[in-house]
Amino acid sequence: MFPNKKIQELVGTRVQVEMKGEKHLLEGTLASMDDHLNLYLTDTSEMTNGTKSRSMGNVVLRGNNIVLINPVKA
Amino acid sequence: MFPNKKIQELVGTRVQVEMKGEKHLLEGTLASMDDHLNLYLTDTSEMTNGTKSRSMGNVVLRGNNIVLINPVKA
Amino acid sequence: MFPNKKIQELVGTRVQVEMKGEKHLLEGTLASMDDHLNLYLTDTSEMTNGTKSRSMGNVVLRGNNIVLINPVKA
Amino acid sequence: MFPNKKIQELVGTRVQVEMKGEKHLLEGTLASMDDHLNLYLTDTSEMTNGTKSRSMGNVVLRGNNIVLINPVKA
Amino acid sequence: MFPNKKIQELVGTRVQVEMKGEKHLLEGTLASMDDHLNLYLTDTSEMTNGTKSRSMGNVVLRGNNIVLINPVKA
Amino acid sequence: MFPNKKIQELVGTRVQVEMKGEKHLLEGTLASMDDHLNLYLTDTSEMTNGTKSRSMGNVVLRGNNIVLINPVKA
Repeated sequence: MFPNKKIQELVGTRVQVEMKGEKHLLEGTLASMDDHLNLYLTDTSEMTNGTKSRSMGNVVLRGNNIVLINPVKA
Repeated sequence: MFPNKKIQELVGTRVQVEMKGEKHLLEGTLASMDDHLNLYLTDTSEMTNGTKSRSMGNVVLRGNNIVLINPVKA
Repeated sequence: MFPNKKIQELVGTRVQVEMKGEKHLLEGTLASMDDHLNLYLTDTSEMTNGTKSRSMGNVVLRGNNIVLINPVKA
Repeated sequence: MFPNKKIQELVGTRVQVEMKGEKHLLEGTLASMDDHLNLYLTDTSEMTNGTKSRSMGNVVLRGNNIVLINPVKA
Repeated sequence: MFPNKKIQELVGTRVQVEMKGEKHLLEGTLASMDDHLNLYLTDTSEMTNGTKSRSMGNVVLRGNNIVLINPVKA
Repeated sequence: MFPNKKIQELVGTRVQVEMKGEKHLLEGTLASMDDHLNLYLTDTSEMTNGTKSRSMGNVVLRGNNIVLINPVKA
């Protein structure tokens, strides 16, 4: 399964997304994505050292600044 | 709703935009956007630790250096 | 007005351009731009803490490494 | 053999991938790739100083933020 | 004159090129360029604090990692 | 000679490649390249302060994260 498809599978579920920059980790519900891997997350929190440090609500993430995406283990 | 559409919805409202670089956060009124997610903001301020640290007026932000965009809670 | 058009409007005027990297701010006269937002500035100075720290003359700035562009208030 | 082909050869094997950012090294089984060099890894671990420091399971890596890819010597 | 044309004009002359990364400045003779602003320099030196710190000979610079280009004042 | 052609000339020879990130220098035999300047190197070593600090074997380097390429003087 191609990487893009893998992310599409995750729509509707909780994901962690690591952005460029030091220790910049977000967790949210993946609402949508596009071909550039731009992501739209809802109910998003910034994570610091494994705990939610800030609540951010709805955010759009620019695809080219995403380092990695992984599912949150339920 | 696709990420791009989500941002288009925000035109005319206050948004926070995190740019690449350390703690580089801007808040302004989203006046326009294009397909590259280049943004044109008016009445823009640089934010430091949650408060406005510098008034910048009109700014154009280069899309590929945007990390994330989220609406300012009214 | 689209972000690109907004910059085109600024041709012939003084602009500040923030480049990627720490505190890398340039001020010059915007002589020309292209679709990639590559900029050609004349009479350019590097700015440090709000004052001109180095005179650079004519410079070409690579569009993808531009963070933001804003007009210098006259 | 072109660089892309070289990576395709590695599908199904363990690879190390260095991402942008300081000392950001991942090791996993390369499950798939696409033309942008986006990678899908399974059984992924973050590596610190040559040892596994964190188990991450399935991850998608954004191609443009990959610095280098090399096979894990068996 | 468009930014690209401006650089083309500089072929055959000495230029300074600032690359991404901290204080990464190169000076060389611009031998050729392409549409991506990839540059080929000959007789290149790395510059530190305004003096040549290392001789590098022929180098190819990746366009997207170029921050700015300016002519060396003769 | 265009920058790309210059690199193609180097296939089969030893090259040094500087990647994005602090002091990230690799030396290897350039086995192949593609249009994105993705490179495939064999017999690769990481260089620290001018000496080989780590042997890495075969590596694929992502073109957009390459800062510069230069031939190793024989």
